[in-house]
Amino acid sequence: MESIKTIFYEEPELNDPILVEGLPGVGNVGKLAAEHLLDQIQAKKFADIISKHFPPQVMVDDEGLIKLVNNEMYYSKGEGKRPDIIILVGDYQGLTPDGQYELSDNTLQIAKRYGVQMIYTLGGYGIGKMVEKPRVLGAATDRELVAEMKKRGVVFSKGEPGSGIVGASGLLLGLGKIYDIKAVCLMGETSGYFVDPKGAEVVLRVLADILNVEVDFSALQDKAEQIDLITSKIKEIETPQEPKKEDLGYIG
Amino acid sequence: MESIKTIFYEEPELNDPILVEGLPGVGNVGKLAAEHLLDQIQAKKFADIISKHFPPQVMVDDEGLIKLVNNEMYYSKGEGKRPDIIILVGDYQGLTPDGQYELSDNTLQIAKRYGVQMIYTLGGYGIGKMVEKPRVLGAATDRELVAEMKKRGVVFSKGEPGSGIVGASGLLLGLGKIYDIKAVCLMGETSGYFVDPKGAEVVLRVLADILNVEVDFSALQDKAEQIDLITSKIKEIETPQEPKKEDLGYIG
Amino acid sequence: MESIKTIFYEEPELNDPILVEGLPGVGNVGKLAAEHLLDQIQAKKFADIISKHFPPQVMVDDEGLIKLVNNEMYYSKGEGKRPDIIILVGDYQGLTPDGQYELSDNTLQIAKRYGVQMIYTLGGYGIGKMVEKPRVLGAATDRELVAEMKKRGVVFSKGEPGSGIVGASGLLLGLGKIYDIKAVCLMGETSGYFVDPKGAEVVLRVLADILNVEVDFSALQDKAEQIDLITSKIKEIETPQEPKKEDLGYIG
Amino acid sequence: MESIKTIFYEEPELNDPILVEGLPGVGNVGKLAAEHLLDQIQAKKFADIISKHFPPQVMVDDEGLIKLVNNEMYYSKGEGKRPDIIILVGDYQGLTPDGQYELSDNTLQIAKRYGVQMIYTLGGYGIGKMVEKPRVLGAATDRELVAEMKKRGVVFSKGEPGSGIVGASGLLLGLGKIYDIKAVCLMGETSGYFVDPKGAEVVLRVLADILNVEVDFSALQDKAEQIDLITSKIKEIETPQEPKKEDLGYIG
Repeated sequence: MESIKTIFYEEPELNDPILVEGLPGVGNVGKLAAEHLLDQIQAKKFADIISKHFPPQVMVDDEGLIKLVNNEMYYSKGEGKRPDIIILVGDYQGLTPDGQYELSDNTLQIAKRYGVQMIYTLGGYGIGKMVEKPRVLGAATDRELVAEMKKRGVVFSKGEPGSGIVGASGLLLGLGKIYDIKAVCLMGETSGYFVDPKGAEVVLRVLADILNVEVDFSALQDKAEQIDLITSKIKEIETPQEPKKEDLGYIG
Repeated sequence: MESIKTIFYEEPELNDPILVEGLPGVGNVGKLAAEHLLDQIQAKKFADIISKHFPPQVMVDDEGLIKLVNNEMYYSKGEGKRPDIIILVGDYQGLTPDGQYELSDNTLQIAKRYGVQMIYTLGGYGIGKMVEKPRVLGAATDRELVAEMKKRGVVFSKGEPGSGIVGASGLLLGLGKIYDIKAVCLMGETSGYFVDPKGAEVVLRVLADILNVEVDFSALQDKAEQIDLITSKIKEIETPQEPKKEDLGYIG
Repeated sequence: MESIKTIFYEEPELNDPILVEGLPGVGNVGKLAAEHLLDQIQAKKFADIISKHFPPQVMVDDEGLIKLVNNEMYYSKGEGKRPDIIILVGDYQGLTPDGQYELSDNTLQIAKRYGVQMIYTLGGYGIGKMVEKPRVLGAATDRELVAEMKKRGVVFSKGEPGSGIVGASGLLLGLGKIYDIKAVCLMGETSGYFVDPKGAEVVLRVLADILNVEVDFSALQDKAEQIDLITSKIKEIETPQEPKKEDLGYIG
Repeated sequence: MESIKTIFYEEPELNDPILVEGLPGVGNVGKLAAEHLLDQIQAKKFADIISKHFPPQVMVDDEGLIKLVNNEMYYSKGEGKRPDIIILVGDYQGLTPDGQYELSDNTLQIAKRYGVQMIYTLGGYGIGKMVEKPRVLGAATDRELVAEMKKRGVVFSKGEPGSGIVGASGLLLGLGKIYDIKAVCLMGETSGYFVDPKGAEVVLRVLADILNVEVDFSALQDKAEQIDLITSKIKEIETPQEPKKEDLGYIG
């Protein structure tokens, strides 16, 4: 059995497609953003990627049907100013360092085959505390892209992220240079403690603008409100509350 | 040395055999069920599977003879309504994710060679507490099988098992789809704290019914009673007992 | 770089040599016994085995010279009733399960090449407490060997070792069967807490008798006395001593 | 994707070059020393080594540009008594034992290709406490080198380092012997708790002397002072201070 097996269901004809990656990671920011984009542009699945580098596991859906854990590739033909887009999403990233390298290399080979010349990888940037207005940080393969992203409000901050970018969102840039593909990583600030639709929204707003995609963010915003509700309840439990006036009545 | 070596002792002639898998797992439910089935239909070993993906270990039997840890394949010719059956049992599952994938892929290659078109994988579904009347949960590769299993009392419950199915019992379904083999996973509820012959019995009752096998469950039930005895003793030790009347005599 | 590289310094001509293995393990019993045998029969090194399955490490000797960690093979030509002997010793066993399998397989290929038909593997059997008169337990590839070993005082005890035999001492038996080589594992009882020359002595006494080798055990016994001294001192520290009469003077 | 990919930017013509290795390790002594040497002789990068054995990670520089984590090779042509020099530095060593072996083997193949006959590996020797005047310990592939190093003040101390040398600094010596390349490891004493420019300085002083390189140590010494400042502050916090006279006024 090969280490990675890509099963193609269709061979779409694409013109200079843009590759967008959003796999699980910090706050699942990249995954949420890519999946929301996928829904919004009604992208169509054309390939499944299964691999020995993923956990030996099947997922069970609500009907009782199983699906081997995988990564999936979708495409959407462009329209007007919107380019052709390929989206990579999935259940897991590779479990080991060499699995990560092999999977990213496999993605780049597929990208090359479809003529991809530009990649956007989406991820979260964990800062260890709740953040009201998350920034979108960036990293890129060359100076022109840095300049272009700055114009779009992406923050390039010296020393951030200090520990570099780990996983597919980093490797597609690093290995991409060898394949001569330009790439940008967009990272939404997030606490890193929760799945974070708010971080996904800010990242996707930048990307949608770049790709000329109209995005309805209401579904993401609903999810964000649900998470906010949960986290505020947790905060209540954890924070010793100031006694309310009426509780003190017996003193006065 | 190959990663996996299958040593065939016989090449049985089989007609549309059903493959049954029962390897170690939660509560050893699958292993117990498959081994009991094997005894009941007096299946005959035809292959040993040894592998670098198993622990580097030999078992020592009561005579002092060693056996390399392995998986074993048995067969039994059908009779009347009972189909030909292949059973996969063993000491261990693969130690690593890629070992798990390779071993399941090896099993499927053998299955394909003998014309297997249907697989039943057996396992436990750990619920973290003692269970009086364990249910049998199911998952399957297609809708028809889900419908058929429901008729036989198998429970398909939304969100269960939430974390999917890990190991051979899941992979044989997931990879089986690539080999175009249909498959069902039957999971007996179990606490997950003990080897659980009761969970094995409920799973095997469903399977025996499907395969038209007559099974005498007394040996499994004896084991279950022994386990019950042990666990009830442990409970006694752990539960602070209400003081008995006479103990309090000195107070009154 | 190959996973395992065997560097031969000589190609000795050997008649039906017996292979003796003693690698690091519980109480280093096997290693101590094999190294002592090697000294006693003045065996000569004919091969070094280096491998990616060992730690990435060099040892530094008292002169400041380095040696890559390895396994080593020695031989000694027989004399009278003493057969030709090959001895496998080393710094480490393979770090991973598949490393263990590959290294044992490599050993068996070399064994086969020199016409080995019988292997003795030496190890410790950890019992978790100090033992005054350690027994030698056995395990073997066939019934005749069990019977023969019993005559020599080797103990074959139902349920011991309960967890089987892990590492080279087990694998050479398990994989040896595939190479059609007979083998016995001799295990000296040991606490498992210390390097145990006493366990090594009892194992080597049995083996020396089988191989018709005269062994002077004084060096091993000296080591055992040193260990005894250390352990008895540790015991003194750990055991709360009964107060001596005079200490209590101030009470009375 | 290969396990290791060496990307050459230039194929320098070198005469009997000396290879110097300084990768991350205890106190980062070797890395600091090799990088300082590289700056001082203005060595030029001629190759990048990327590998699945490194973390799946990119670094982000102050401009927002990414670089895949790697090892790098530099060269400097000799002058007068100074030989041609190749320097190996990098972000990481291999993450696994077999990665370590493969990477060192790859280095040796490149070394052989450029005619390297002598290697100096640089590292730290952690002693678990602060050290005022760090010694430089040595280990070598042959006696002549030990004698030569002793003359230069390198310490060869029986039983040090007791646990051998782990990683590239050891493997290049151990595997180097197979490639018939002589080698010395120079280890600067260091606490092992901090990045240690002082340890790097003493190691580089020895090496600079051997290679007839003029080195300005001020940059290393500045770093050492900064570290000293930090560690002395930490000491203040950790050490319960003797109360100063004036603090006690209220008592007297």
